[in-house]
Amino acid sequence: MKANYYSVIFSNERSQLEDSKYHEFSNQMLTLVQHAEGFLGMESYRENSGRGVTISYWETLEAIQKWKENTQHRLAQEYGKAVAYSQFTTRICEVLRAYIFNKKENKQ
Amino acid sequence: MKANYYSVIFSNERSQLEDSKYHEFSNQMLTLVQHAEGFLGMESYRENSGRGVTISYWETLEAIQKWKENTQHRLAQEYGKAVAYSQFTTRICEVLRAYIFNKKENKQ
Repeated sequence: MKANYYSVIFSNERSQLEDSKYHEFSNQMLTLVQHAEGFLGMESYRENSGRGVTISYWETLEAIQKWKENTQHRLAQEYGKAVAYSQFTTRICEVLRAYIFNKKENKQ
Repeated sequence: MKANYYSVIFSNERSQLEDSKYHEFSNQMLTLVQHAEGFLGMESYRENSGRGVTISYWETLEAIQKWKENTQHRLAQEYGKAVAYSQFTTRICEVLRAYIFNKKENKQ
């Protein structure tokens, strides 16, 4: 079905998996983003190798920009570049269509 | 920087992680998609819980549609719905902008 929202695909590779400061920032961002204007939701995956991705969903491009500029988020971004990630790619996307399949729901 | 391509975010949950037929289909699709017209690349993550995501990148929406309709891919999709996945969401997106950070390259 037609969709009309935005996504940020943040593909990354952690420098090291043992990093208490990373978890501190990560938990702080997780709490903070829930209250960000226009935030719709997120999903996050991490493999044992250190490779992972976080995909967040947003109502507008302006909401993404505002979150990017959030002061606390900027500190986390700096830490990400300086320490936490050896590499990452951030892609800003427009979600054009979405299809949902749920076996439990389909059986009802 | 500005980008001009498309992505398919396929977020899913495996019904069971032990499934040789799934791996057979998965390997077959991996080989096949590399030769699909307009295919740019993909990244895939799976957590031990069974939750995972595959993100593929494409030159055009037409290329995505053509891959969706590929006969062998359709068989894999049917298996996915009938057996492999308890739920999934497929999102078709336009990539508007992409930023790449690589510590090694930045140090050069």
